[in-house]
Amino acid sequence: MQNTYAIGIDVGGTNTDMGLVRDDAKVVERRSIPTTNYTAIGPYVRDIMTQIESMLAAGDPEKGVGSIALNELTGIGMGAPNGNFYNGCVEWAPNLPMKGVLKFEEEFHKYVDIPVVLSNDANAAAYGEYVYGGARGMNHFIMITLGTGVGSGVVVDGKLVHGFTGTAGELGHNILIPGGRKCSCGRRGCLEAYTSARGIVQTYVELRNEKCTPSNAAQHPEWIAASVPDSEITSKMIGDAANAGDPLAKETYRKVGEWLGLACANACTFSAPQAIFLMGGPTKVGAPLLEPLRESFAANLLNIYQGSCDIHMSQLAANEVAILGAAALINMRK
Amino acid sequence: MQNTYAIGIDVGGTNTDMGLVRDDAKVVERRSIPTTNYTAIGPYVRDIMTQIESMLAAGDPEKGVGSIALNELTGIGMGAPNGNFYNGCVEWAPNLPMKGVLKFEEEFHKYVDIPVVLSNDANAAAYGEYVYGGARGMNHFIMITLGTGVGSGVVVDGKLVHGFTGTAGELGHNILIPGGRKCSCGRRGCLEAYTSARGIVQTYVELRNEKCTPSNAAQHPEWIAASVPDSEITSKMIGDAANAGDPLAKETYRKVGEWLGLACANACTFSAPQAIFLMGGPTKVGAPLLEPLRESFAANLLNIYQGSCDIHMSQLAANEVAILGAAALINMRK
Repeated sequence: MQNTYAIGIDVGGTNTDMGLVRDDAKVVERRSIPTTNYTAIGPYVRDIMTQIESMLAAGDPEKGVGSIALNELTGIGMGAPNGNFYNGCVEWAPNLPMKGVLKFEEEFHKYVDIPVVLSNDANAAAYGEYVYGGARGMNHFIMITLGTGVGSGVVVDGKLVHGFTGTAGELGHNILIPGGRKCSCGRRGCLEAYTSARGIVQTYVELRNEKCTPSNAAQHPEWIAASVPDSEITSKMIGDAANAGDPLAKETYRKVGEWLGLACANACTFSAPQAIFLMGGPTKVGAPLLEPLRESFAANLLNIYQGSCDIHMSQLAANEVAILGAAALINMRK
Repeated sequence: MQNTYAIGIDVGGTNTDMGLVRDDAKVVERRSIPTTNYTAIGPYVRDIMTQIESMLAAGDPEKGVGSIALNELTGIGMGAPNGNFYNGCVEWAPNLPMKGVLKFEEEFHKYVDIPVVLSNDANAAAYGEYVYGGARGMNHFIMITLGTGVGSGVVVDGKLVHGFTGTAGELGHNILIPGGRKCSCGRRGCLEAYTSARGIVQTYVELRNEKCTPSNAAQHPEWIAASVPDSEITSKMIGDAANAGDPLAKETYRKVGEWLGLACANACTFSAPQAIFLMGGPTKVGAPLLEPLRESFAANLLNIYQGSCDIHMSQLAANEVAILGAAALINMRK
């Protein structure tokens, strides 16, 4: 049987990555253009189309395919901040240089008459896991992405939940601790304020400020050096420190695991998923996060859901998930 | 055009209420049998069938229908605690005298070859609102039922969310205040512990114990009399007192409104509904609950959902919603 091909586009604030994706989850070709160069959608989509044509011309030598025609593609999928599945637009994305309502579906259709599907990046990641990754065959699951922020995608009955507005699935802004930490959204106590990369750093800094004094820092070489200022600490450094034995870093990830486990248990009362998948930089720390997370999840889970839902890591490669996820969106029935 | 008819059955711990429901949301006939009389499903369903036959024989005189044949019914819908949509069973319902897994769909099919559909009571209420009530035409909404417990039904893309287990939509057991009040489920801080009838009474009692002393009680005739012991206070009494000007009762419902508003805002991050409907005894108090609820909802709602979701009261009659909701389940595609 012949393979089919789709285009997946990941619109980031800095770069726009795109790939030619074969239906067996192989990213055959990749291209990238700097998002920051564009203040208008017209030139942006024109230049994306140029890159797509270049990938199609390269074809898929591994399968003996010399070049691929544009109208042979199954579609173009795009994961973008504030990408709206219903109307094919990106609406007022704060981190993009292009402002206002960007009518991507319409703009691509000036060049090509194949399906063009948009959603936000976390939704795309969730659907990528469903089509290509560890969630294949699961009709009810949730993806939570930890990064600068905390995103999520919720799949119910094999479909992404987009809701009335098209912007459902913002579990990062579920208020976990009423009156708690200030969040980037302006409110207090959101999951994102505790489990994003920024939240993880904040927890470590709070612990270090509490425990570390000029007189005792020298006795604790396992801590991230007191000479590293708060503003230069990253969640990656804390993850490495946790695995190297820094008790403050371990304590930080223990707290993150507890918060995230509670959030996962709460999510189950909504859609009773078969699994919750995690992805993103801060999840790479491994056991220091996953052990307390699984404990907290079990302790906070309502009895009727015990044993029915597992926590998994995404099975897609970190450098491909955004492109695969975007391409996967084409498979979702409207 | 001729009307169609369905049976709706509401399985309560004390009574089983059933009705013959016309497709224009009219409950034409009603019957009731005591659930407590039955320890086995066989005699229970047999006696329900006897009542159904009796309703069918009575027919629908208003429409000039003399009697209705069993196989003319569009189906039998049943709302029951722990009712499982997927397998047509009630599974280990703690409040029923019949124990274990009760195979209702199978049992009814010994008598009749029409669709038999089960779900839990709150899901049935949500679907009743969709088919017959205020949620007609809304594909994304949530129903929250306040009573002895707090139940919910979540509708996404015009379907009830049942999840992997068949038991999704338990927002009453979303943990709102980590480490908070003990809940009937054994955990702490669930929405139910704060906004169920029991939770409302607990809040009032706590306030009264804090404010009311033997010396000052006589000066506050507006309080529920100090002579009424804590164990005899009901949420209905508190609601009446709130509307009569009792400041402790008003403060109680203000807190309930704040908690519920936060829970509603959190629910939006999941499914971005067009509306959240409320029903049940404690909601009948009106303004003392609804005003702080709407304020809290607006204050806790993520900016992208502002203006897209309203709080409504159920538009179905309180004494019919369970039967209408059960009958409505027949309309849901599996």
